[in-house]
Amino acid sequence: MVCLDRGKRLSSIYFFEEGNATERMRLGGKGANLCEMTRLGLPVPPGFILTTDVCNAFLSSGKLEDGIIHEVGKAMTRLEEKTGKEFGSATNPLLVSVRSGAAVSMPGMMDTILNLGLNENTVKGLASSTRDEGFALDAYRRFVQLFGRIVLGVEEDRFTEVLEARNTLTRRTGSQDDGDPDDLRYLVEDFKELCESTTGSPFPEDPLIQLRMAIAAVFRSWNGKRCVDYRKQFGITPDIADGTAVNVVAMVFGNLGKESGTGVLFTRNPSTGEKALYGEFLMNAQGEDIVAGIRTPKPIENLQNEMPESYGLLKDLAARLERHYKEPQDIEFTIERGKLFLLQTRNAKMNAFAQMRSSVDMTAEGLIDESSALLRIMPQQLEQLLHRTIDPRAGVKPITRGIGAAPGVSSGRAVFDADRAEKEGKAGQKVILVREETKPEDIHGFFAAEGILTSRGGKTSHAAVVARGMGKPCVCGAGDLQIDQKARKLSIAGMTIGEGEIISIDGTTGDVFFGEIPTLDPEIGDELVTILSWADNYRRMGIRANTDTPEDASVALEMGAEGIGLCRTERMFNAQDRLPMMVEMIVARNHESRARALERLLPLQRKDFIEIFRVMKGLPVTIRLLDPPMHEFLPNLERLQDEIHALRVNEQSTEEIDEKMILLHDVERLSEVNPMLGHRGVRIGITTPEVYEMQLRAICEAIAELVREGLEVKPQVMVPQVASEKELEVVARMLDKIRLQVEKEKSTKIPLKLGSMMEVVRSCLIAGKIAKVAEFFSFGTNDLTQGTFSFSREDAENKFLPEYLRIGVINRNPFQTLDPEGVGKLMRFSIRDGRKTRKDLEIGICGEHGGDPESIELCEELGLDYVSCSAFRIPIAKLAAAQASIRKSRSNLDINKRQGVR
Amino acid sequence: MVCLDRGKRLSSIYFFEEGNATERMRLGGKGANLCEMTRLGLPVPPGFILTTDVCNAFLSSGKLEDGIIHEVGKAMTRLEEKTGKEFGSATNPLLVSVRSGAAVSMPGMMDTILNLGLNENTVKGLASSTRDEGFALDAYRRFVQLFGRIVLGVEEDRFTEVLEARNTLTRRTGSQDDGDPDDLRYLVEDFKELCESTTGSPFPEDPLIQLRMAIAAVFRSWNGKRCVDYRKQFGITPDIADGTAVNVVAMVFGNLGKESGTGVLFTRNPSTGEKALYGEFLMNAQGEDIVAGIRTPKPIENLQNEMPESYGLLKDLAARLERHYKEPQDIEFTIERGKLFLLQTRNAKMNAFAQMRSSVDMTAEGLIDESSALLRIMPQQLEQLLHRTIDPRAGVKPITRGIGAAPGVSSGRAVFDADRAEKEGKAGQKVILVREETKPEDIHGFFAAEGILTSRGGKTSHAAVVARGMGKPCVCGAGDLQIDQKARKLSIAGMTIGEGEIISIDGTTGDVFFGEIPTLDPEIGDELVTILSWADNYRRMGIRANTDTPEDASVALEMGAEGIGLCRTERMFNAQDRLPMMVEMIVARNHESRARALERLLPLQRKDFIEIFRVMKGLPVTIRLLDPPMHEFLPNLERLQDEIHALRVNEQSTEEIDEKMILLHDVERLSEVNPMLGHRGVRIGITTPEVYEMQLRAICEAIAELVREGLEVKPQVMVPQVASEKELEVVARMLDKIRLQVEKEKSTKIPLKLGSMMEVVRSCLIAGKIAKVAEFFSFGTNDLTQGTFSFSREDAENKFLPEYLRIGVINRNPFQTLDPEGVGKLMRFSIRDGRKTRKDLEIGICGEHGGDPESIELCEELGLDYVSCSAFRIPIAKLAAAQASIRKSRSNLDINKRQGVR
Repeated sequence: MVCLDRGKRLSSIYFFEEGNATERMRLGGKGANLCEMTRLGLPVPPGFILTTDVCNAFLSSGKLEDGIIHEVGKAMTRLEEKTGKEFGSATNPLLVSVRSGAAVSMPGMMDTILNLGLNENTVKGLASSTRDEGFALDAYRRFVQLFGRIVLGVEEDRFTEVLEARNTLTRRTGSQDDGDPDDLRYLVEDFKELCESTTGSPFPEDPLIQLRMAIAAVFRSWNGKRCVDYRKQFGITPDIADGTAVNVVAMVFGNLGKESGTGVLFTRNPSTGEKALYGEFLMNAQGEDIVAGIRTPKPIENLQNEMPESYGLLKDLAARLERHYKEPQDIEFTIERGKLFLLQTRNAKMNAFAQMRSSVDMTAEGLIDESSALLRIMPQQLEQLLHRTIDPRAGVKPITRGIGAAPGVSSGRAVFDADRAEKEGKAGQKVILVREETKPEDIHGFFAAEGILTSRGGKTSHAAVVARGMGKPCVCGAGDLQIDQKARKLSIAGMTIGEGEIISIDGTTGDVFFGEIPTLDPEIGDELVTILSWADNYRRMGIRANTDTPEDASVALEMGAEGIGLCRTERMFNAQDRLPMMVEMIVARNHESRARALERLLPLQRKDFIEIFRVMKGLPVTIRLLDPPMHEFLPNLERLQDEIHALRVNEQSTEEIDEKMILLHDVERLSEVNPMLGHRGVRIGITTPEVYEMQLRAICEAIAELVREGLEVKPQVMVPQVASEKELEVVARMLDKIRLQVEKEKSTKIPLKLGSMMEVVRSCLIAGKIAKVAEFFSFGTNDLTQGTFSFSREDAENKFLPEYLRIGVINRNPFQTLDPEGVGKLMRFSIRDGRKTRKDLEIGICGEHGGDPESIELCEELGLDYVSCSAFRIPIAKLAAAQASIRKSRSNLDINKRQGVR
Repeated sequence: MVCLDRGKRLSSIYFFEEGNATERMRLGGKGANLCEMTRLGLPVPPGFILTTDVCNAFLSSGKLEDGIIHEVGKAMTRLEEKTGKEFGSATNPLLVSVRSGAAVSMPGMMDTILNLGLNENTVKGLASSTRDEGFALDAYRRFVQLFGRIVLGVEEDRFTEVLEARNTLTRRTGSQDDGDPDDLRYLVEDFKELCESTTGSPFPEDPLIQLRMAIAAVFRSWNGKRCVDYRKQFGITPDIADGTAVNVVAMVFGNLGKESGTGVLFTRNPSTGEKALYGEFLMNAQGEDIVAGIRTPKPIENLQNEMPESYGLLKDLAARLERHYKEPQDIEFTIERGKLFLLQTRNAKMNAFAQMRSSVDMTAEGLIDESSALLRIMPQQLEQLLHRTIDPRAGVKPITRGIGAAPGVSSGRAVFDADRAEKEGKAGQKVILVREETKPEDIHGFFAAEGILTSRGGKTSHAAVVARGMGKPCVCGAGDLQIDQKARKLSIAGMTIGEGEIISIDGTTGDVFFGEIPTLDPEIGDELVTILSWADNYRRMGIRANTDTPEDASVALEMGAEGIGLCRTERMFNAQDRLPMMVEMIVARNHESRARALERLLPLQRKDFIEIFRVMKGLPVTIRLLDPPMHEFLPNLERLQDEIHALRVNEQSTEEIDEKMILLHDVERLSEVNPMLGHRGVRIGITTPEVYEMQLRAICEAIAELVREGLEVKPQVMVPQVASEKELEVVARMLDKIRLQVEKEKSTKIPLKLGSMMEVVRSCLIAGKIAKVAEFFSFGTNDLTQGTFSFSREDAENKFLPEYLRIGVINRNPFQTLDPEGVGKLMRFSIRDGRKTRKDLEIGICGEHGGDPESIELCEELGLDYVSCSAFRIPIAKLAAAQASIRKSRSNLDINKRQGVR
């Protein structure tokens, strides 16, 4: 059969000498690499590949087409010629392995059948050609078992039962040797009978029929549950791998006596990155014996003593492959009676540290250049290096698993409310704040806690966002936990943990543990420093931090922030000592009492800003004016109702009840149907100008103080929720007035930029007008995504996004990774339109996406000036930004090449 | 002074012969028309105009520039030459009136000073030149009083006190004649003293100073509170009128004896439109005497007997003016000793009916053509004709005023919940449903009620939207009403109205009345039929109705709908007998129980569709699949909590409590943080496919039944909340499958189109992809506006939109009138992108904006195929669509003309 694709006739079957490493989409990773090795002249057993197109045709029609069957027959004839053996021969039989191999490696997910071609006739031929009857029968036994299980669907346990029955019998008959040919012969017969009784048909004897059935089974395994789940789990969509190829390879045997063996090796240590062969081998064994763990393999170094010639050759070939692929390789080999064969090579999977070290080493060795060194590290991997991890040697088992929402590991006493967390934290206790979900009023608990655990909410819940911002580990949505806030305990599967008992969480994996667990310190070594310094050279975009307090600002600086891209002033109001003033301000009945409350907040805000400016030493600090709706600062409605109820039951003073009733009324008055789209941001700034006036004054006075001290400051004031340039004009006028006043009062100039959050769809649509007033843009992509999709973040992640992702209606959670088609289009438009109005418009992003590598790539493509993310993601963002720059310049280079530009 | 504008030197002062009617922005409406009449050679007293530029310069500097004062002096000299009189002369003095006049008429809002130029000297001159000392002194008295009040700010009451004191004195001294010169002389002195004692300065004697002060006062009145409020109320923004002009006009006197008089007249009757002079006059009087109502004016016809010559001339001039302006005119005239002067002409303000009748008549008379006839009717005015109105003769006073949210008048017994409304309604009672606000679960109450009254919510609240859809009068947000749902009463200002007492509402004005009020039937006469038939000829866009039931569909057809643009299926589930099944479906724990509930809903849905298709007789019927979030069908959380509490207190059976508790849990589980952005629309269709499957099956089966009967059907299925083409693909596959099944079952073809609501921003951004699946688009501009602005409708209208509109951050409520810059840009983009993919893509709008004339104009500009609105707005939409077409083709004509295209 041939497939027609873009007018080019593509073959369905490739011999290894016909393909190369670039064709992995159609040949699969394994097949493409076998081709590549064959072309390099390396010792690879001959074989051929059925492409993924054949797989997809099979999966849609449900059968192998006659044309394909015919071609497979022809290929087998060619393989016979290459090997000098004959498929089905009773004297010198050709045996093959039938191996799966998709475009990306999915270890253990699909099936492999070895020794195919054996039957009652050929097993005799194998015995005679190898002069080893025991070996031949053992190979036959292995084949029947594998084929029976994989192709015929006989359960593995049934084979074990038969084997045990036979062993009992054998022992009873006094036979001691497992390899006794007669025993094996009986066993094979038993296995074949088992297959026949299970399937109702005799075990197939015709090798060509065996082959067809095996190919079909491997194709079928692509849509097996195990495999589908794996693809879902790892986001392997059809653009990444679409069906599996099948490799039909002439068998070579590592179990043909003492001169034979098999093994795997890495060209560098996958845990440490050290440049030294790393791996293990077994003499007189087949590959599956290593996996099965029945015999203990030996370290690869030992091979040097046992088979120095093979070892030398292997070492050379390994080095050659690494040089060729410019990546550490993970190689499978077999030695058949002294002759070395390579069965597979692929890029080695390494942990973050090893990946980084090998990047640095290979660059030093001249194998790759700095930009390639940067490109081979997955930015997300760095996270492993930046947080404490659980010591894997401890072998502790979690009590449940939630969503790993903010990475790192921490242990502490479980506490069930923020006040208690703060109290115990101040008393020097380590605590984990445990709640069903968190609210802004819990913020002081966050400051005090080592980590956060909730039973509700996802990666973008309040708890997750705040914890990430603070760099504290957080596990969210651990739905199996029954958290009883009132009784101050949590229970799970019959186990109850009370307040004060120690628990641990791993915010990377989402695991929750009872008790303290042993952890490892983060390893920030020279390699990371080197990698980040290279990244700094290659990236075009600046990296700023989302951070709200002087303490966090210090951490951000340490992590390499080049400024603050988002300083949320509302967090400052949430502090325990300030919230009452804020509440007083909100519920104020008249201008005077509001002004009084704001007057008390002003010096506190000023102090915040002064400290942050001081820490940031002249780097840009972008302050966002108050954003959330007022009612977020007020107590929860239901809790308030409960409190009033309780006061009534206890017949408390009516005064206290009245006070609460008034507050309740305010809470009701300020409550909203859709708070995300409600009275917030600049809308508050316009309807209750006193609030913004206070904030602007605090900022101006803080600047004035530092300027008078002779310090440099680069403050930027950012207005949230802007939908119309007129809103921004109102704030600009307010700022001008206050700035002039303060300049007069303090006799100093106040340097200051005013900019707009771009988080409302409309602001993007009229960006040119916004840019007339705004000196900079900062994309608030959380809200922008919300408005673009009409998805409320919390509701979407709790209700329908999981299903959307499962069935592929969308491929990425748009709250984690920027949606290039929708949100990206709005951004692109507003960048173009904004810069048309103001050429030097500074444009950044301060949404959660600012720390997501894929989103950072889009930001580079769009030409943003900087990304801003939580302090702990800065190294990740730096690397991602560097990679984006490199990829962009490479693709420009490609375009230029194609257009003949030098 | 001269103003430089676009390189052209513009004069600050225009004599009437120097301007024309096109310059109303600078000359004001009154001035421009005086110029026009002067140029036509009509008898207008000479005079000149200070432009609005002068006004704005005055308002920003706070004073009249020297240059202007100089020019005014020169203009007065010229006026002296024209009149042959002298300003300040003691023998033949020139007197002037100083009149305001902005670009649009703002009746009574700004000030006019008459007889300016009088002082102790000139009053003698006036007496001698008119040979009437009494007249001269009376003119003087009037002047001092007017000038004192308007320019010097003396309260009117103070003049009245002085007048009364003087009258008492006069009576005591035996003088009986009010016109006695001595009395008048004393009165003038008293008035002047009053002015001096109030202001601390003597009354100005210098006529030029009087003039300057009067001009300044008129300019100042533009920014007076009264005037500012008026502009706000009627949306008069600076692009419509920017400052007032001042007209300085030589005085003519209607009170110079029996040969003098003054009056106003309309060229056609402003109430009936009848072509006949309509107006009134007073002999020997000044204009203000008519307004003051001291003497009763006579009908204008009487003038024919009293002054046949003047009457004849007036009639000719009136006809000439109407012919000239091609609009019925509202004319002020004065006859001074037999000589007729026209003091003002403007387009007559008429009620809707008169406007329409005059349109039809003037077209028949050949004065205007059909398109001009259509253009002169404000579409909104038609609303008056389509609903009952309060009989103005009854003179009833409202108890409060809310927001007129759905037009029309109705009376009925006040009832405080939907169940009661339904019960009483079925029993034949007329009821008004009174609630703080309504919810979807109140829908059966709407059906039963004559009208709806709420104390909360605005024009786009649930109550308003539903009531408008049903064509029932509705008054919303009557915030002064204290509605006590539990006690079943409402109270206002000490008055209490209990359940069952009669109230009335006027949904046009927002007025609420106690008791029944006399009303007038709507007058749908031949004129409206004529106008609408013309509109049908001129409009390009189709007009469809938003309607959900067969009954409403009939009404829509009667109103002239050309199809249904939005049939909301969720309303069908809200019916009292169906809601329980819906709730059962929603809370179903497994597929089986859900399927059971849906099976019972299926035949009901099918019946709905069959009936609607039957009514619509082959016209397009656009059915929207289920849209709102599931929890909207469930009982209110708080009410449920209350119920459980009550059950517990009353120690009811635990079974009942348990049942409610389970429901409570479901309500909590399904509740959302931002329901507008939550789990709704196609998101439900994808996560709970059974619901859409049932609906699609009901639609297909309904179509099959009608097709088998040989009836024509044009069904269109519309998917709500689409954000990605993949969502639409899922529904398309679902539909294909069900359609095939039903076609097989019923052995008939099922004609059907599938389309997408365009109400999510992202759908507009990827419209090209959506159009690959969608055969039509329908803009859901309510949600689209919400997503574009990030404004939640309810929250915005209750919290910050009023302030935004007040200070002009936005100029129109975007939920009432489409935002052309933001939402319009998205629409424009998606229309272009969608039609690029699918040339014959049908595009309509079904949001509330579909019935708003200004929005309809934008829809025409964007090239939409149709607009869909509530049935009762169809005539309005038709007229608006016709006007939009006409304006568009006229402006194209203009462009072509300019480009020399014939």
